[in-house]
Amino acid sequence: MAQGLPDAVSTDNPVFRAYLFYCGILILKMMLMTILTARQRIKHKAFANEEDAKNLKVKVRVDENVERVRRAHLNDVENIPLFFVGAFIYTLTNPSEYVAKSLFLAYTVARIVHTFVYAVYVVPQPARMLSFAAGNFIMSYMVIKGLINFA
Amino acid sequence: MAQGLPDAVSTDNPVFRAYLFYCGILILKMMLMTILTARQRIKHKAFANEEDAKNLKVKVRVDENVERVRRAHLNDVENIPLFFVGAFIYTLTNPSEYVAKSLFLAYTVARIVHTFVYAVYVVPQPARMLSFAAGNFIMSYMVIKGLINFA
Amino acid sequence: MAQGLPDAVSTDNPVFRAYLFYCGILILKMMLMTILTARQRIKHKAFANEEDAKNLKVKVRVDENVERVRRAHLNDVENIPLFFVGAFIYTLTNPSEYVAKSLFLAYTVARIVHTFVYAVYVVPQPARMLSFAAGNFIMSYMVIKGLINFA
Repeated sequence: MAQGLPDAVSTDNPVFRAYLFYCGILILKMMLMTILTARQRIKHKAFANEEDAKNLKVKVRVDENVERVRRAHLNDVENIPLFFVGAFIYTLTNPSEYVAKSLFLAYTVARIVHTFVYAVYVVPQPARMLSFAAGNFIMSYMVIKGLINFA
Repeated sequence: MAQGLPDAVSTDNPVFRAYLFYCGILILKMMLMTILTARQRIKHKAFANEEDAKNLKVKVRVDENVERVRRAHLNDVENIPLFFVGAFIYTLTNPSEYVAKSLFLAYTVARIVHTFVYAVYVVPQPARMLSFAAGNFIMSYMVIKGLINFA
Repeated sequence: MAQGLPDAVSTDNPVFRAYLFYCGILILKMMLMTILTARQRIKHKAFANEEDAKNLKVKVRVDENVERVRRAHLNDVENIPLFFVGAFIYTLTNPSEYVAKSLFLAYTVARIVHTFVYAVYVVPQPARMLSFAAGNFIMSYMVIKGLINFA
């Protein structure tokens, strides 16, 4: 059984501090997606709303460069909130500090690489698939360890 | 007023352990959606990205079977992160262990049924609507109990 | 360094109570988006699923009034889960009670205004942009304070 939370959920616990730190990095990473999307919308003059298009005297239209960034963003939205909770559950299983910090770092890097090869500089497959799989593999490990602990 | 958190947010608290457990189940459930989507994309040769379609020598195209799974996934993305936080708030209101565990289980079952009747084996309405409403009803109860406690 | 969590994550901590309260409000706000979408779908008879359209003897079709609400909802889905975690991190940095409560309130108001000018009563830009920027500015501040604390 895991140690009681008054010890695990404490800013004195280096694993919990690392959890908070990497969550912060991933939040900033996701907020950047909005800027990437806006950049593509302005560059390609492709807006989703009448009131935005009107400002630049263009019609509402769909552009593949915008959609690509939006798909990368949606992939973040589908996955990163799972990390926020899954890594919290894992933190409460009293993991080794070294393993936990390595997993948090690896997950964060995998998600940043995923966005990069998807929407910044498009790299042929399996670059995107591998970075996606790496993140999911880490998540599965953390969650299953949690389920075993708290079943 | 609720009891102090050093007691509520503790792996010694059976409600908090149940919260962590069902969050883990829901995370795995959401991760499965990616596999369901990939299965439909391959089966119907319908890809969203040029670099994926090229591998199978097909053109990028939209397919209703893929879109249906994606709508079910998006519905998860819109709702399940609310459970992650809403059920946490509720856990801190010092609920009865029996009621809390029943609500967590019922919510989890409702979401799994929702996906099943939406995207695995399509069942006529109101199956999807009822499973969706059940989840939302539970969420509303948990959140409103939290608001009353922490206002 | 922040104080130990046994004090910060406690329902005796007014900042943590405010965090829980505003999370609850934002959850209800997001759940309302489903009702807004359903209302537009019924009003304009525009459904995404065959089994829904069939009930009203119409064809599946896309309607701009529905899409607008869905874009507002997606914007919530992209942003509000970041608040759930970002404001939690910030709560653990031992902020001033007055500043923390003001930021939580301002963020919540900004998100409600964003939805209102986007999808309820459409107001010309920069209304939507400003409400979006206000939310993001607050998020950035909270997350960066957290990163500095927990690096």
